[in-house]
Amino acid sequence: MEVQDKSLAELKQVCSDIRERIIDVVSRKGGHFSSTLGAVELTVAMHKVFDVKKDPFIYDVSHQCYAHKLLNGRWEEFETIRQYKGLSGFTKPKENEADYFVAGHSSTSISLAVGAAKAIQLKKENRVPVVMIGDGSMTAGMVYEALNELGDLKLPVVIILNDNEMSIAKPIGAISKYLSKILAGKYYQNFKGKVDSFIRNNMPEGTTYIAKRMEEAMKLITPGILFEEMGLDYIGPIDGHDLEEIIDTLEIARDMKKPVIVHARTVKGKGYKIAEGQHEHWHGVGPFNVEDGEFTKKAAAKSATAVFADALVELAEKHENVVGVTAAMPSGTGIDKLIEKFPQRFWDVAIAEQHAVTSMAAMAKEGFKPFITIYSTFLQRGFDQIIHDVCLMKLPVVFAIDRAGIVGNDGETHQGAFDISYLRFIPNMILCAPRDNETLNHSLEFAYEAKGPCAIRYPRGAFGEVDFPSSKFELGKAELLKEGTSKKLFIGYGAGVSRACQTEKLHEEDIAILDLRFVKPLDETLLKELSSKYDDWYVFSDSQKQGGVASAILEFLNKENLCVNLTSFEYEDEFIQHGDTKLVEEGLGLHPHQLVEKIK
Amino acid sequence: MEVQDKSLAELKQVCSDIRERIIDVVSRKGGHFSSTLGAVELTVAMHKVFDVKKDPFIYDVSHQCYAHKLLNGRWEEFETIRQYKGLSGFTKPKENEADYFVAGHSSTSISLAVGAAKAIQLKKENRVPVVMIGDGSMTAGMVYEALNELGDLKLPVVIILNDNEMSIAKPIGAISKYLSKILAGKYYQNFKGKVDSFIRNNMPEGTTYIAKRMEEAMKLITPGILFEEMGLDYIGPIDGHDLEEIIDTLEIARDMKKPVIVHARTVKGKGYKIAEGQHEHWHGVGPFNVEDGEFTKKAAAKSATAVFADALVELAEKHENVVGVTAAMPSGTGIDKLIEKFPQRFWDVAIAEQHAVTSMAAMAKEGFKPFITIYSTFLQRGFDQIIHDVCLMKLPVVFAIDRAGIVGNDGETHQGAFDISYLRFIPNMILCAPRDNETLNHSLEFAYEAKGPCAIRYPRGAFGEVDFPSSKFELGKAELLKEGTSKKLFIGYGAGVSRACQTEKLHEEDIAILDLRFVKPLDETLLKELSSKYDDWYVFSDSQKQGGVASAILEFLNKENLCVNLTSFEYEDEFIQHGDTKLVEEGLGLHPHQLVEKIK
Repeated sequence: MEVQDKSLAELKQVCSDIRERIIDVVSRKGGHFSSTLGAVELTVAMHKVFDVKKDPFIYDVSHQCYAHKLLNGRWEEFETIRQYKGLSGFTKPKENEADYFVAGHSSTSISLAVGAAKAIQLKKENRVPVVMIGDGSMTAGMVYEALNELGDLKLPVVIILNDNEMSIAKPIGAISKYLSKILAGKYYQNFKGKVDSFIRNNMPEGTTYIAKRMEEAMKLITPGILFEEMGLDYIGPIDGHDLEEIIDTLEIARDMKKPVIVHARTVKGKGYKIAEGQHEHWHGVGPFNVEDGEFTKKAAAKSATAVFADALVELAEKHENVVGVTAAMPSGTGIDKLIEKFPQRFWDVAIAEQHAVTSMAAMAKEGFKPFITIYSTFLQRGFDQIIHDVCLMKLPVVFAIDRAGIVGNDGETHQGAFDISYLRFIPNMILCAPRDNETLNHSLEFAYEAKGPCAIRYPRGAFGEVDFPSSKFELGKAELLKEGTSKKLFIGYGAGVSRACQTEKLHEEDIAILDLRFVKPLDETLLKELSSKYDDWYVFSDSQKQGGVASAILEFLNKENLCVNLTSFEYEDEFIQHGDTKLVEEGLGLHPHQLVEKIK
Repeated sequence: MEVQDKSLAELKQVCSDIRERIIDVVSRKGGHFSSTLGAVELTVAMHKVFDVKKDPFIYDVSHQCYAHKLLNGRWEEFETIRQYKGLSGFTKPKENEADYFVAGHSSTSISLAVGAAKAIQLKKENRVPVVMIGDGSMTAGMVYEALNELGDLKLPVVIILNDNEMSIAKPIGAISKYLSKILAGKYYQNFKGKVDSFIRNNMPEGTTYIAKRMEEAMKLITPGILFEEMGLDYIGPIDGHDLEEIIDTLEIARDMKKPVIVHARTVKGKGYKIAEGQHEHWHGVGPFNVEDGEFTKKAAAKSATAVFADALVELAEKHENVVGVTAAMPSGTGIDKLIEKFPQRFWDVAIAEQHAVTSMAAMAKEGFKPFITIYSTFLQRGFDQIIHDVCLMKLPVVFAIDRAGIVGNDGETHQGAFDISYLRFIPNMILCAPRDNETLNHSLEFAYEAKGPCAIRYPRGAFGEVDFPSSKFELGKAELLKEGTSKKLFIGYGAGVSRACQTEKLHEEDIAILDLRFVKPLDETLLKELSSKYDDWYVFSDSQKQGGVASAILEFLNKENLCVNLTSFEYEDEFIQHGDTKLVEEGLGLHPHQLVEKIK
């Protein structure tokens, strides 16, 4: 939709149409909701003031990009949002040229803008990168690194700080408080003039610092002093739903030819009364009834996350030294329960995975048992800290890795495919995985007692069924669930165990099933034994092939000079798309009925 | 050495003795030099004011910890600093209890302090974490994440900001400029009183913001306004060589019972005139003559870094779209040459690996060819960005990975062991390695033409010799250097090729040698062919076994159902200690004469 020539009244109508479309589609299909509703005016104003055909439009995390999609050639297709083979819930250049970058992880936008601005300068082009970033994304270290260079180089970039005083969960940390203070203190700006003239009249003579201190004084009445100190201009706060004010401000910012932050206050869920405000559960939703806001899907089986949270509560009640942390995902990881129950021992440190890992390393050194509860894909942000601060010190930190395997509609930026591959080679690390609710409890008990770093992975949603009774976890001990009369052996890891069991049931032969439990250290004794009984091994695990579970087994077999035929049913070497998990897995040929065919 | 009961005069003598010892030992043995010399008074004052037996002493990066080592039971042993089986150049708890954490990567200290402070609060102990962090380390995102939580929780932590206006290289970025401005503006503090009283007399009545704005006003004359805005107290700047001033200030800070930054100005190399000031080459040194500061070691063979830098200059001259970045390691990566020659196209972004990677991703999207020049171990900090911002977008970014393999005296925090393991499973990534100077040139030419992300690794120092002529790089093509009459095949990767060649020469048989060149994608055709000719394969590569080169080959052989005996001479599953590279490699049994024995 072309909006650059539209009048203010027409633009308001556009906003209203967009809202209606979002509410209609998301209420039927589900998707990100309140943040994208809150960003409608900002997005329309961006398209009015900047030129999406040339200026890089960069959305941080990009779950607030629905209005952008609707404005750029996807009005009809929007019906397929987050569905298998449909539109992505995030910006995606393959989908449309107006999407500058893929973004699903937070806080990359300002770095992208700096890179774009450098390129534009070198190419001597007349384009301005414009960023939309939420207040929640402002806590990650990447943002600071990018601001540090941007404030130094002073390249033209407009950063719209979309401040709804709430990332996904509650606002956390000093930055968040700082932003709230700005919002609250808006009307104090008229104090400015007085101070200004005072400073002028009281300057000591003839020093070069006069100008500098003048600037400082000006900042006294600039609410965005923190940004100004970092070398960026600051405008705001403005009303992020007042289209005219936004357009006027963005025009000024665009023409400043330097980095400027436009601080806009918005309301999450704006335009859909029931969702307006600080309601975490309206961030991402399933289908709901527009009339009353009731969710239409019934509660599914108890999720692994919920099982984990209950088990951790129990553990924390029993042991005073159990502490834990989340990086801005309290309800997603289930740790909200613990923060509520033990506010002195469980923390949300905001989007700050690096800090989460290293601060917990120090707590482990002090005798505590920290649980870092985190999604597989977000733990990637703390990778160096796992090596350098936890494993090198061999500290007993537990990584409770949620969303391991395919996560469904969020898609390629969120799949938990890589954790085994990026953790397995780190010395001192223990890697294990439960196959169901009961073993998740066992694995946590094991992790509590472990003397070094230990990572436990479990899937999004509920575990598949496994009909075997469970024993306690012992370091490096696998569990042979059943012997078989055929020469085949199914090896499952984590959620892969239930897939192995289902596949076995569909197969005409009687096949042995091993729950590997530990991919590091491996149960070498048992594997050796099994290699003399079974010739054809099949590995079931929700993980990348390269460096994954089968790879670990191959390394062992090779070292011991053992010969078996091994087939891996892990993920191939490509990024996995979004959609309903079942459909995505079928697309990859990973459903039991497909696997049975492959095995035959 | 017990310093808490010593008088000021005695403490000054201690400082002088420490300096003498550092200059004596480092001039003979080499080591970190100017930063550690500059931190002597700060370290002694820390030991006077805090109690090293109970308070966590946390040194960021910790290359400035020599005075700490000397004060804590290692006066004699200091002779062995950074030598094989001798003292580490960094803090190391295994060495001495006074060392709180291992630290070799930058900017972890404040996170550690936050964790320690949380633990202390829970345990209700009377201890205060004290951090020493250099201005260079203040640019990394981790610091900001930690300050964000610390400024919110207000836990007692004393942070000594050791500001020598120079990290390793030049100060870079807005934060650095900000700190310099503070240092310069010190005497303006007396301006404070006037503003203060003005504010008081001009306050609007009866609003709750009066107190807030008062605080703001106070900050006008607080040079550390940026820190104050983040919720930390700030004292400074103070003279970091004035023992009395430091002790007085630290006592105040310790008793404040909240987070406070003590900003101390120091001079790098203090006490050794020749090294005093901003001389990058005095940061870490080899042996030198104390009289005249001349380095005693002769220049070694041309390093891979130098070859890389020359090749990149040539490439940048030929192609205008070649750009590049370093994260605070301009001379270490050789990119200083390019920054000097093409200041508009090559940047030092300070210690900011995440931002380095993502900003270059945007440049690639804009049609440039970015070279990210970085040490293997530091690229770990940009891990998520490689996946999420480069590989997911399949952007043609080149990762020029220096210090791959064993790095020598820096030791376990710096070994370049993991890069193959943490990059190989990422979809769209190409991984290759040159074996010598000529092939390094070829690999860069290849990388320039590559259509997607490409990582090239090369070692610290000079390549070993390889007596085979080189051909151009072609995607996924290995190079068979020689056929052999025995059934053995040596497979070398990168610097491993020369080790394979040397081992072959020592072996009595005539053995085929393959330069693998690409560990991703593998040369499947050639490997298949070779599997029918040669039965026993040996892999030579400076990389971790788990997920490494041999693992990649095993995955392929298994997929194709090919059977060979494969032995990997990569690194075992443990962190590798420091020391002269030759000694370390011998310790690991990786010298050609040792390998020949193993093969027999």
